[in-house]
Amino acid sequence: MAKPTCVVVGVGPGNGAAFARKFNRQGCQVALLARNQNYLNELQAELNDAKSYVCDVTNSAQIADVFSRIQGEMGPIETLVYNAGSGHSCTIENLDIYEYESDWKINCQGCALFSQLVATEMIQRGEGNIIIVGATASLRGGANFASFASAKAAQHSLAQSMARHLWPKGIHVAYLIIDGPVGKSRALDGSARDNQAFLQPSDIADTAFFLTTQARSAWTFEVDLRPHVEKW
Amino acid sequence: MAKPTCVVVGVGPGNGAAFARKFNRQGCQVALLARNQNYLNELQAELNDAKSYVCDVTNSAQIADVFSRIQGEMGPIETLVYNAGSGHSCTIENLDIYEYESDWKINCQGCALFSQLVATEMIQRGEGNIIIVGATASLRGGANFASFASAKAAQHSLAQSMARHLWPKGIHVAYLIIDGPVGKSRALDGSARDNQAFLQPSDIADTAFFLTTQARSAWTFEVDLRPHVEKW
Amino acid sequence: MAKPTCVVVGVGPGNGAAFARKFNRQGCQVALLARNQNYLNELQAELNDAKSYVCDVTNSAQIADVFSRIQGEMGPIETLVYNAGSGHSCTIENLDIYEYESDWKINCQGCALFSQLVATEMIQRGEGNIIIVGATASLRGGANFASFASAKAAQHSLAQSMARHLWPKGIHVAYLIIDGPVGKSRALDGSARDNQAFLQPSDIADTAFFLTTQARSAWTFEVDLRPHVEKW
Amino acid sequence: MAKPTCVVVGVGPGNGAAFARKFNRQGCQVALLARNQNYLNELQAELNDAKSYVCDVTNSAQIADVFSRIQGEMGPIETLVYNAGSGHSCTIENLDIYEYESDWKINCQGCALFSQLVATEMIQRGEGNIIIVGATASLRGGANFASFASAKAAQHSLAQSMARHLWPKGIHVAYLIIDGPVGKSRALDGSARDNQAFLQPSDIADTAFFLTTQARSAWTFEVDLRPHVEKW
Repeated sequence: MAKPTCVVVGVGPGNGAAFARKFNRQGCQVALLARNQNYLNELQAELNDAKSYVCDVTNSAQIADVFSRIQGEMGPIETLVYNAGSGHSCTIENLDIYEYESDWKINCQGCALFSQLVATEMIQRGEGNIIIVGATASLRGGANFASFASAKAAQHSLAQSMARHLWPKGIHVAYLIIDGPVGKSRALDGSARDNQAFLQPSDIADTAFFLTTQARSAWTFEVDLRPHVEKW
Repeated sequence: MAKPTCVVVGVGPGNGAAFARKFNRQGCQVALLARNQNYLNELQAELNDAKSYVCDVTNSAQIADVFSRIQGEMGPIETLVYNAGSGHSCTIENLDIYEYESDWKINCQGCALFSQLVATEMIQRGEGNIIIVGATASLRGGANFASFASAKAAQHSLAQSMARHLWPKGIHVAYLIIDGPVGKSRALDGSARDNQAFLQPSDIADTAFFLTTQARSAWTFEVDLRPHVEKW
Repeated sequence: MAKPTCVVVGVGPGNGAAFARKFNRQGCQVALLARNQNYLNELQAELNDAKSYVCDVTNSAQIADVFSRIQGEMGPIETLVYNAGSGHSCTIENLDIYEYESDWKINCQGCALFSQLVATEMIQRGEGNIIIVGATASLRGGANFASFASAKAAQHSLAQSMARHLWPKGIHVAYLIIDGPVGKSRALDGSARDNQAFLQPSDIADTAFFLTTQARSAWTFEVDLRPHVEKW
Repeated sequence: MAKPTCVVVGVGPGNGAAFARKFNRQGCQVALLARNQNYLNELQAELNDAKSYVCDVTNSAQIADVFSRIQGEMGPIETLVYNAGSGHSCTIENLDIYEYESDWKINCQGCALFSQLVATEMIQRGEGNIIIVGATASLRGGANFASFASAKAAQHSLAQSMARHLWPKGIHVAYLIIDGPVGKSRALDGSARDNQAFLQPSDIADTAFFLTTQARSAWTFEVDLRPHVEKW
């Protein structure tokens, strides 16, 4: 019998890789998506039953094409993890219209387009999971995040709309609020104190995976995640 | 001495006209902006010292041009009321990518672009007001508002970023949550019961104007407005 | 014809006095309530048509008695401003059960008891205003505010319940989030920079009074108020 | 080696029993607390290594006594689940002062007192879990929940304060928002449609237990739980 398929959109060496590893270890074949091939090859070689796809989520035609190829090569999608994110740091004074549009397209429009394709197919089966990766900025518009926070708030609202429409159809849409700095290999070379201050991608992935195991009588939409020493 | 200038972006016979009338009655000359000229002529004739400008807020070049013409013809802007709004009703299943982008541009990108131009000039004077008109959907992503709510959430977050950056520079950014149906002339032909269920644009405008009179020691960012019989 | 009556619960030289002065200047006779007589005499002498009442809001019998005396001496109550507040600073570790209970009774139970008496009478007339004074802590439980924030959150929730029940009966319940330090005379002897950092009680009172003038088609429940230089 | 100890405060045949069963199955000895002995005997007989304690959480002396007995009989507490809840349904008009005080004491003061005792001991070990069971009313003051919602909001704010103070000391405080009707045996005799509308206590307990397994780099404070068909 075919393994269930997990698609991770936005794969780099941090959270994206951790999601892929976790779902792979739990028995999924994994589709790895990123804007360029470099890191995908490396991660694909590490995992069992993983395929990689180059996809620019600001390009709706590419999204449709990649979705179609995944369906053909890996079958129906059990879980979509939307981890693509981008954020230009700016105030309203130095906000750049092209970066603003790009931030919105990567965080929000791409999420809507990919989710729409995936959901349409999941609705027929009456099951599936869509996990969307948000941030502190999803809930708070800081002065220096005029572009990124606005895009994340748009994504958060979209995820709510999706949950309210798709839960009754059996599709578990959930949203992670990553409320702190995420550790990467280089950051974790630092002191013990520094290590405590960072979220470990593998720990984030554990909670993401848990959400896909919740029974329908008690589903969660939103989960905040932060280091125990974080100020909030 | 020149009257202070109030710019109302998004002028129709509902809230837009009410904002224009209120600020005009309070001594402002008013710039009226809408996508087409039809209603602008009628309202301009009704008011004192009003000028009208055709402006499509999805077009950044038009925004820059109209802003420049207003500055030339009416002087520095004391108050910007961003009332342009648009919302396609859809779930994630039938969300249309072009409508989604349009909703975001009208509610959010246009607001950023117009505010950026206005704020840059207000910062030099160390004063000014930017009032942005939101909705229930700014705070809640309903199943049938996948496009509109996402755009409004993006706008709401942007307004927060703007407030946090611009308040200390003397510019009062505030956000109205219009939480109920807004009465228009035709709706108000109904029964007394019906009338109670609608927000009156002139009552909304009274609160918007009040915000521009608050002293700096106690400014408000967010105000919810709803009929007293509304369920919430 | 009798002047409308405004009752201010919790009168000291800061916000309480400012509410009393503002409503008095706007044509109200004012009932001044505090735990002890000292400051009441001074303020009563300053105002026109003011009466003072000693009232411990943790004592339900005193609340009932004072309410009855106000009704007898000043007639029906047009506006109640509940400004009584108290907050012990503590973490969960050093929270004291008696202080915790006292904080809850002053901020929350007293508000419920006074509002219940006032609302019952307002419902018969189909009009009236109840303004409740909250704080940052109403929305956020900080580590060092285990007692105060919990009491303020209870008050905020109570105010919401009251608004949802009483608005349709014509009674405008509203809640102020005072999000910053409030200036008192001594604080305002400081530098210009210091002055900017404080809310002026008279500015808070201006917004409180404005809320009582809103038309029923567009009532506000919650208003945040903070100095323009405040971080939030 | 001694099994870790889990204390469940507020044990009845619904959520309380489910928490006890889950932590027991996962290897904990369990202390069962309720106001009266009746159900405790039955559940204690069903579980391995469970002890029952009669405790009225409105009585601070009883809380201190029971805590001390648990420590003596079962050793240090690894996890506290505070599930005691009570809510009188009322509007501000028919709120009863004694019920209001009782609701606050059961949901909030008892939680503070028990948590304070448990936390003081956990701080010394630098680890432990405190899971607090909230409800929709924790976040929303409905018209008919003037007493219950106010108590739950106070509890929610307290939990936030506790988390902000205790997380850096290694104690994971988390809060469950139970957003829907919880199924009990009798309710679940209904139709399939009815069953879908109820949260299953065992499913709630699965998420509560998961929270105690999260790694410190990515702890969650708040989790919403509702049936997939619930409107929200």
